[in-house]
Amino acid sequence: MTSLVCTNRSPIGRYNSSCRFQEIYSMLLRTFRSTIPAVKRMYSQIAAYDKYTTLKVTAPSEYVCHVELNRPDSLNSMNKQFFTDLRQCFEQISSDSSIRCVMLSGAGRFFTSGLDLKDAALLTSDQPDVGRKGLALLRGSITPFQESISSLEKCSKPVVCAIHSGCVGGGVDLVTAGDIRLATSDAYFQIKEIDIGLAADIGTLQRFQKVIGNDSIFRELAYTCRKLFADEAFKIGLISSIFVNKEEMMKFALETCTIIASKSPIAIQTSKKSINYSRDHSVKEGLEHVAAWNMTMLQSEDLIKAVMAAVNKEKPVFSKL
Amino acid sequence: MTSLVCTNRSPIGRYNSSCRFQEIYSMLLRTFRSTIPAVKRMYSQIAAYDKYTTLKVTAPSEYVCHVELNRPDSLNSMNKQFFTDLRQCFEQISSDSSIRCVMLSGAGRFFTSGLDLKDAALLTSDQPDVGRKGLALLRGSITPFQESISSLEKCSKPVVCAIHSGCVGGGVDLVTAGDIRLATSDAYFQIKEIDIGLAADIGTLQRFQKVIGNDSIFRELAYTCRKLFADEAFKIGLISSIFVNKEEMMKFALETCTIIASKSPIAIQTSKKSINYSRDHSVKEGLEHVAAWNMTMLQSEDLIKAVMAAVNKEKPVFSKL
Amino acid sequence: MTSLVCTNRSPIGRYNSSCRFQEIYSMLLRTFRSTIPAVKRMYSQIAAYDKYTTLKVTAPSEYVCHVELNRPDSLNSMNKQFFTDLRQCFEQISSDSSIRCVMLSGAGRFFTSGLDLKDAALLTSDQPDVGRKGLALLRGSITPFQESISSLEKCSKPVVCAIHSGCVGGGVDLVTAGDIRLATSDAYFQIKEIDIGLAADIGTLQRFQKVIGNDSIFRELAYTCRKLFADEAFKIGLISSIFVNKEEMMKFALETCTIIASKSPIAIQTSKKSINYSRDHSVKEGLEHVAAWNMTMLQSEDLIKAVMAAVNKEKPVFSKL
Amino acid sequence: MTSLVCTNRSPIGRYNSSCRFQEIYSMLLRTFRSTIPAVKRMYSQIAAYDKYTTLKVTAPSEYVCHVELNRPDSLNSMNKQFFTDLRQCFEQISSDSSIRCVMLSGAGRFFTSGLDLKDAALLTSDQPDVGRKGLALLRGSITPFQESISSLEKCSKPVVCAIHSGCVGGGVDLVTAGDIRLATSDAYFQIKEIDIGLAADIGTLQRFQKVIGNDSIFRELAYTCRKLFADEAFKIGLISSIFVNKEEMMKFALETCTIIASKSPIAIQTSKKSINYSRDHSVKEGLEHVAAWNMTMLQSEDLIKAVMAAVNKEKPVFSKL
Amino acid sequence: MTSLVCTNRSPIGRYNSSCRFQEIYSMLLRTFRSTIPAVKRMYSQIAAYDKYTTLKVTAPSEYVCHVELNRPDSLNSMNKQFFTDLRQCFEQISSDSSIRCVMLSGAGRFFTSGLDLKDAALLTSDQPDVGRKGLALLRGSITPFQESISSLEKCSKPVVCAIHSGCVGGGVDLVTAGDIRLATSDAYFQIKEIDIGLAADIGTLQRFQKVIGNDSIFRELAYTCRKLFADEAFKIGLISSIFVNKEEMMKFALETCTIIASKSPIAIQTSKKSINYSRDHSVKEGLEHVAAWNMTMLQSEDLIKAVMAAVNKEKPVFSKL
Amino acid sequence: MTSLVCTNRSPIGRYNSSCRFQEIYSMLLRTFRSTIPAVKRMYSQIAAYDKYTTLKVTAPSEYVCHVELNRPDSLNSMNKQFFTDLRQCFEQISSDSSIRCVMLSGAGRFFTSGLDLKDAALLTSDQPDVGRKGLALLRGSITPFQESISSLEKCSKPVVCAIHSGCVGGGVDLVTAGDIRLATSDAYFQIKEIDIGLAADIGTLQRFQKVIGNDSIFRELAYTCRKLFADEAFKIGLISSIFVNKEEMMKFALETCTIIASKSPIAIQTSKKSINYSRDHSVKEGLEHVAAWNMTMLQSEDLIKAVMAAVNKEKPVFSKL
Repeated sequence: MTSLVCTNRSPIGRYNSSCRFQEIYSMLLRTFRSTIPAVKRMYSQIAAYDKYTTLKVTAPSEYVCHVELNRPDSLNSMNKQFFTDLRQCFEQISSDSSIRCVMLSGAGRFFTSGLDLKDAALLTSDQPDVGRKGLALLRGSITPFQESISSLEKCSKPVVCAIHSGCVGGGVDLVTAGDIRLATSDAYFQIKEIDIGLAADIGTLQRFQKVIGNDSIFRELAYTCRKLFADEAFKIGLISSIFVNKEEMMKFALETCTIIASKSPIAIQTSKKSINYSRDHSVKEGLEHVAAWNMTMLQSEDLIKAVMAAVNKEKPVFSKL
Repeated sequence: MTSLVCTNRSPIGRYNSSCRFQEIYSMLLRTFRSTIPAVKRMYSQIAAYDKYTTLKVTAPSEYVCHVELNRPDSLNSMNKQFFTDLRQCFEQISSDSSIRCVMLSGAGRFFTSGLDLKDAALLTSDQPDVGRKGLALLRGSITPFQESISSLEKCSKPVVCAIHSGCVGGGVDLVTAGDIRLATSDAYFQIKEIDIGLAADIGTLQRFQKVIGNDSIFRELAYTCRKLFADEAFKIGLISSIFVNKEEMMKFALETCTIIASKSPIAIQTSKKSINYSRDHSVKEGLEHVAAWNMTMLQSEDLIKAVMAAVNKEKPVFSKL
Repeated sequence: MTSLVCTNRSPIGRYNSSCRFQEIYSMLLRTFRSTIPAVKRMYSQIAAYDKYTTLKVTAPSEYVCHVELNRPDSLNSMNKQFFTDLRQCFEQISSDSSIRCVMLSGAGRFFTSGLDLKDAALLTSDQPDVGRKGLALLRGSITPFQESISSLEKCSKPVVCAIHSGCVGGGVDLVTAGDIRLATSDAYFQIKEIDIGLAADIGTLQRFQKVIGNDSIFRELAYTCRKLFADEAFKIGLISSIFVNKEEMMKFALETCTIIASKSPIAIQTSKKSINYSRDHSVKEGLEHVAAWNMTMLQSEDLIKAVMAAVNKEKPVFSKL
Repeated sequence: MTSLVCTNRSPIGRYNSSCRFQEIYSMLLRTFRSTIPAVKRMYSQIAAYDKYTTLKVTAPSEYVCHVELNRPDSLNSMNKQFFTDLRQCFEQISSDSSIRCVMLSGAGRFFTSGLDLKDAALLTSDQPDVGRKGLALLRGSITPFQESISSLEKCSKPVVCAIHSGCVGGGVDLVTAGDIRLATSDAYFQIKEIDIGLAADIGTLQRFQKVIGNDSIFRELAYTCRKLFADEAFKIGLISSIFVNKEEMMKFALETCTIIASKSPIAIQTSKKSINYSRDHSVKEGLEHVAAWNMTMLQSEDLIKAVMAAVNKEKPVFSKL
Repeated sequence: MTSLVCTNRSPIGRYNSSCRFQEIYSMLLRTFRSTIPAVKRMYSQIAAYDKYTTLKVTAPSEYVCHVELNRPDSLNSMNKQFFTDLRQCFEQISSDSSIRCVMLSGAGRFFTSGLDLKDAALLTSDQPDVGRKGLALLRGSITPFQESISSLEKCSKPVVCAIHSGCVGGGVDLVTAGDIRLATSDAYFQIKEIDIGLAADIGTLQRFQKVIGNDSIFRELAYTCRKLFADEAFKIGLISSIFVNKEEMMKFALETCTIIASKSPIAIQTSKKSINYSRDHSVKEGLEHVAAWNMTMLQSEDLIKAVMAAVNKEKPVFSKL
Repeated sequence: MTSLVCTNRSPIGRYNSSCRFQEIYSMLLRTFRSTIPAVKRMYSQIAAYDKYTTLKVTAPSEYVCHVELNRPDSLNSMNKQFFTDLRQCFEQISSDSSIRCVMLSGAGRFFTSGLDLKDAALLTSDQPDVGRKGLALLRGSITPFQESISSLEKCSKPVVCAIHSGCVGGGVDLVTAGDIRLATSDAYFQIKEIDIGLAADIGTLQRFQKVIGNDSIFRELAYTCRKLFADEAFKIGLISSIFVNKEEMMKFALETCTIIASKSPIAIQTSKKSINYSRDHSVKEGLEHVAAWNMTMLQSEDLIKAVMAAVNKEKPVFSKL
């Protein structure tokens, strides 16, 4: 299968045009045989993020942070502590001017097996009354879990999700709240909630159809709980690229994050804000929204720095944000 | 072409991973060479649904009903009676606790040729005044036809559309209101309204762009009235799967429906509700909506039954709904 | 590669069904070896559109007009005059009953290199006060540029964009406001704004995600500023067709426009109105909107003319609009 | 208090300008001492509306119908039959071209005491499961009751509510769905739901704040369940006029209905449609909506008839609608 | 009635607190017996606004302009020229930095009699086809007239409407698009459109219910076409103040405009923008909108100037805007 | 003026019907000459709320808490600490099951003088770049202040604001986020922001027009910064009642709170949720929202308890919430 392997699209500019017509093959499998040494996970954890027991946060390159789901022994299943950590971590990142882009992945064998069903606190309540129990579920679980997942979307910096192996149940809620999704060729996704007797209520049913363009397959996935493998996930637009193994994926993810982190933070953060807003509004309202923001942002020094750097063919250095 | 044929995605778990990299071929053609005997159309019509003259309603398996467009001599063209039957039938299904999933197909040579232009009552009015004629069209045709088509969407149970041969004009309005769309390799779709001098006003222009992810091709289809064949329909996301013939498609459709019907009806119906709502609202509003519903639904017995069944590796039995 | 070449989808009806299963190859490359002589650009400019210095407007066939970005020496970069011309031109076309469809392309080597950064008036203001400078930018640049780009969307007639070579920065804002997008195999798109330190504010961030179905790739493009080549643009749904060269593309574009221009203008314009409205509203509101319009439009003579022509197998002749 | 009594505002043109400065007194009390004989309730019931057991429908003048809540022995309390009757009755009126305006009042001692708590079917369900019970309440009570109340709003003809004595609980839901509200000086309103342990869910909490302009008093009424007497109801804008007794109110209501029924039905029904739509949308969307409708309606013969009648000082005669 | 007369609310600070409890009388009639000489209409027309034949534009005080409806011989009826003038005039004012507040009144005996029915071009079309006629009405009359009226709302500066005598039909559309409404005690308003057989389609049905708080009276006015006299208009919130005669009203209007014109134009224009936006959006969206604007505006020099002037008890001088 | 004094509206049922026609006087002035001893402010602070330095929180009666703005020496001006305290306090109350209703007032001479302009941290930022300064203002001041004010609206329990003397600037933002507003006869309101050179951005411009029904006076207040005295505030619907002095007001406020606190907390909290939601959505969406909630809430024990208590004429005792 050697002839199928080519890098049809590379963020570091090695685009080989003769290769383009073979995209049909290469879209199935992104293999890097580059000589860049493998990305080593040697970074020490960032001190300020030490406190999260279910996440590991490191700094693989300047302005990039790497958040790892870090309960490998439980297949990174999502317990109450995880939801609390996740939200606090992304709120901290959102206002941490030493970070401009986030890479999210899972430690161990699995990306995540979804909700930790052993964590009894998740979906129960000791209220005897139906009304009070309903409110307890709403206030104690549903809303805080929704806000935890939404913290990726609300984070002012882009989030690149690198997914390997299984991404099940709550994991789908999680990655659809990110900006960019990558996966290994052995990855699969599973909207699993209906199999445990409930409708997915923390993001999947709300975001999935808005990030892809195939409502028929989305509903089939949601109703049947069948697995969605990486190649079909690529075809329907859930993920941007497929990689032969996790190592290659992490290398590419880091490259992508590093490129994003090198851009004007004013431009990146305003863009993310506008993209999220525009998804949920009419074109006209999206235009008014970005116009209001750009009254300020077009007066930023980043504009001049970026243009000057381009003219002088230098790397621009932007102030903290 | 034998080597192209493989079942890349099967709802009953026979996924052949070595096959996955050939998805690019198999996506064009789903062929089952399984030994499961062909689905025989031997089911007798359900008595309670006898009254519909333009539809045939049978019960191919537990909790599944099969609605067939049943005017084969007129290529299942849609006359006034059809619109009335369709709406009543799906409203009846929606509250019929013996049905949990619906399979929709067309009897005879064609799925449907669209609006029955011989039914003079459809688009005319004997009002001499432009204003009154406008209101007569609105109240006598446009709105009731819209509500008829929308009854698929409003039906609390999922609707799987199995399309063969031609699906023209009003047929496109119809199937885009369903949940899942399957087609045979000889099927084609045609947004035909502009060719008879009018803008499609009962669903196509409103739903088509929301179920696929290719506005450019959608507009080309709408403006030129050209045919969209099954392979391109698959590529742009209008349909989930292609089958070599109608028999294979019906077999797969029934399997899919049977799987859906085996799940918690609380979970399925809440999911459909949330998916429809979320399509038309912002992510935030979609989250609030499903949260309000799950205050009730997380207290349902289905949750416990589903989890218990999973633990005990049994088939759960859910109460009627 | 001869065997890969076939016209899987042709607006003039030569569909070769045996070819369909090869769509997977031909989707990559649309090659016409037809004997139709090449489309010559011999049309003289339409007098009423002489006044636009940055655009060239010709009439290649009945009811079709061709708008060319016409600053080839500056790579059709977009200066202040261009934005003014563009809006006035499309407003003029919108109410010009001799035009029913528009073809948009770029003269010279490039489709467009985007914003003309040499036009100092674009993003600066001599106001010393931050507040007043913000308003000056809003009122002097952002809003008028947005309205200029949106004039394609608001134009009552469909706009077919034929893109060759580079379509950079503001060019992406421009073509996503059109109805149908075609490209040559050497074309590429680039959301370039972040590289000059600003968030795209005249359409790309608002419309791009609504015309395709792959949010992950969209955000990757927006944040990294990488090039999107024609084949990937085809895959994610940004463009409908790829052509081996500009000549073939223009021929196809003209054919498409000619077909659209032959249809009922009442039906076409109502459809465009409804498609734009439905994109920004819920299905229910989209249905109410088209219903209100069709109270009038179903009473138009075009309906009878179209049906009669179909019955008599004649070409219908519609009144001006 | 004789000097306080004057008709500051009369629909039949007897406006006494010297009286205007006494409006402050007369606004409290509309007293007619006119010689017009009292409105006798001698009209026989309209045959087509005989079937409603909880409502009495008569025809007091041309094109006007009078709907009476007609369970005086139960204080017109609202039972399941009432909700069914109400919806069917107003849907029938909506498409009955012999009716152009509706007068709604209550027979007997009370306007209505609200929900009939003795009708056990209203708020209970025999489902043992919380989820199924929730859906049974939604589908069996809440939604059908909401649709029953909303049938006044959806009715294409204006509804004038004439309220005497108590209008409690569901009665407030009912009258806020009407167009115009009149009351006798002894009338009172009471948002009563919280006193029986539930949030009002069939209209009051949704419409009340949109028909008046005093959110502080609205919330006080909703939370405390205190009575709102006619004078304060007048002050905060819930009702348009106060009358010394029911006879005077009915006379005025009938005059108002008769005037409305004498106008162009095209103009009246389009206005009601637009007012309802505009309440729930932005000004811009309201303008687009009425514009789409008036494309048709400005071509109606009613326009010419109305203008001609005005010129010739004749009473216009409009076709049925 | 002398004792009733007091200035309960005066923009120039002469508030007499002992008078407050008599507000109930004085709200009916604002009488100034101040010694300030009557406002003389001696200002010459502003040259740049000479071109409008149906409007007279003068400059009564610094930063204030006075727009007069100026077809007194036709009772300021609104013809096609008027709608064109009005829009152009308010767009000119919107970007004229020498104007900060606008006073709008009518010359002659009447404020305006509404649509000029003698201007045949207004509501007719020579198109023979219903569809084309509909579009001609939409594009030639309805939309341009709507945009003309909406130009008051879109004007970046506040508009104070001073209304005397009759304000009929289109006049109500006009003044409800202004910011502040004042009237003389002999003024009356009349939603007149239904009497000429059409639904008001240029603003009244869309804005009226949003500027007052009494839906019942609004609908009564719309359906019956009865006159609304100044006192009732005051009671329901259509107008802010009533004056004994036009002279007093103009004096007060000019004082109000002068006060507004003395404030920070950044603060005034941002406030008007936010008020208009918030009317049409949820509270949450309104808050996000003003927050985006204030990122810029809080950095304006006006903030410092205003605070410094307050500290130093000086009149602040703001830069042009 | 003794004869004018009567309690036209009393929450404890002493309604004197003969008094009703004097409402016009009494609406100006609510005087209680009841024998109930004056409300003594003897309650000790609730321990759990000790931490707030700018607020004093006491428990005047069962399930009622009293929050006092408690910086009397600074006229309760709003500094950064205040905004932090306010939000935390209302979030704490929202989930404190020992509180069911909140009374908010100001300690000392003034209700509040608004933003504390001496707190330099409020509106400045040390960022040198316009873009970064804008974001710093957004994230450091505007958004947190908005969220602080909105915490009253989001609090699950009703908030009754009792306002005396001046309520200026930020104070208007504050009280319009409450549920019910009462004021003393010497109270006044002042939208003051424009006088310090900025548009009100933490609630007034967004909520004021939605709680009253007089857009003309609202805009006059916003643009001119004039004072709005209690009587006019009452007339336009900003406040529900006026009192002769603060003691009487506090007594009435406490009575109102006590009544609210005696009701079913399920019913009260669901009602507040629905009222807030409905204000910002269409009637149809408001109905769907409350329906989803009542699927749960109608199954609450509160319903039975409330009905039983009514039948048995007992005071119901509801479980904690």
